[in-house]
Amino acid sequence: MKSLEVTVLLSGGLDSSTALHWAAKHHHVNMALSFYYGSKQAEQELECAKFQAQHLGISHQIVDISSISPLLKSAMLKNGAPIPEGRYEVDNMRQTVVPFRNGIFLSIAAGIAESAGAQALVIAAHSGDHTIYPDCREDFMTAMSEAIRLGTWANLGILRPFINASKGDIVKQASDLRVDLSKTYSCYKGGPVHCGVCATCLERKEAFLQAHIPDPTTYLL
Amino acid sequence: MKSLEVTVLLSGGLDSSTALHWAAKHHHVNMALSFYYGSKQAEQELECAKFQAQHLGISHQIVDISSISPLLKSAMLKNGAPIPEGRYEVDNMRQTVVPFRNGIFLSIAAGIAESAGAQALVIAAHSGDHTIYPDCREDFMTAMSEAIRLGTWANLGILRPFINASKGDIVKQASDLRVDLSKTYSCYKGGPVHCGVCATCLERKEAFLQAHIPDPTTYLL
Repeated sequence: MKSLEVTVLLSGGLDSSTALHWAAKHHHVNMALSFYYGSKQAEQELECAKFQAQHLGISHQIVDISSISPLLKSAMLKNGAPIPEGRYEVDNMRQTVVPFRNGIFLSIAAGIAESAGAQALVIAAHSGDHTIYPDCREDFMTAMSEAIRLGTWANLGILRPFINASKGDIVKQASDLRVDLSKTYSCYKGGPVHCGVCATCLERKEAFLQAHIPDPTTYLL
Repeated sequence: MKSLEVTVLLSGGLDSSTALHWAAKHHHVNMALSFYYGSKQAEQELECAKFQAQHLGISHQIVDISSISPLLKSAMLKNGAPIPEGRYEVDNMRQTVVPFRNGIFLSIAAGIAESAGAQALVIAAHSGDHTIYPDCREDFMTAMSEAIRLGTWANLGILRPFINASKGDIVKQASDLRVDLSKTYSCYKGGPVHCGVCATCLERKEAFLQAHIPDPTTYLL
């Protein structure tokens, strides 16, 4: 694979932390970008993001767009409703949608990556992303990739190394890449340890079971 | 034309101020959105944006994304190189590109408009927009519109009322809509009065000449 100058979107979760390690192995990472947008899990996630970037010696930028938070409606945000518990179902998932979040992150990342001379963005979208989120669907991603390619001088590309992988597959790759997954954060509730009962904690637990790899995460329940 | 619930992107320039009046006549405007992103003309523009929204009794939100400014390269920004003088040419125009600005604005506006229950965004793109800016080209706009439609629950649309109009045509429409164009700001230099010699001031002067409408703007030169 040709080595590119890339900018990685890094939330500090399991998927994007593994994507950062993948990118560092296969490409030249000029920057890892995290967004502070007023989400409940921001502090825990950003601490993990900072750890992962520092561990790889990669420049880490946190973009503060929390001023948009009061104008967005979502249970994911500090000013939003409580996070629902249990598995993802249409009703509780819909509350956790942050409207057009992937579009916002990719657009800002495109402007910054273009300014820094990158050739592509890396995003950890994967096959388990829930299609109830409109901005996780394949047709959205195709149109957004096209908009970013056409709207930049460098014709920026988007790399999605895990697009055909399950979350279990990502845990396996993380193990091969020696990612310290105890320093990644998934829980929507944002407490000091993973709650273990929100939909994303349940998915995190399942991913380790599927991968047959011990889960280093401390869960409250 | 069917009346829609719309959110208008309002910089405070001549085009977007006229678009706001057009939208207020033909649709229901739930909000006018301005972006503070560290541009040299921000203070002058935002004062005009505020005036135009207040005049029409429309809620005005200023979204502060100035934290991304240090990560973007452009002569348009306060931390950038000086604004070139004279007509638009490839070399001097390219310096004033803010990488992927339209993509960033439209994406954030999409998230906010979706949260507020809007059905469409209104943007004052027009036929005189310079195709040297990648994110002003028709193919970019088509892809971006598709990404926003597909990436939102409401399948948000984008209205571009001036897409077939010249800047002179917009001045004529502004006159019909009784827009106070003395309370709009175009100059890239950002001084208290329009410089009269930067590329955008030259275009503003020409637009009034083409429309055969007296120019109420005070120019330094």
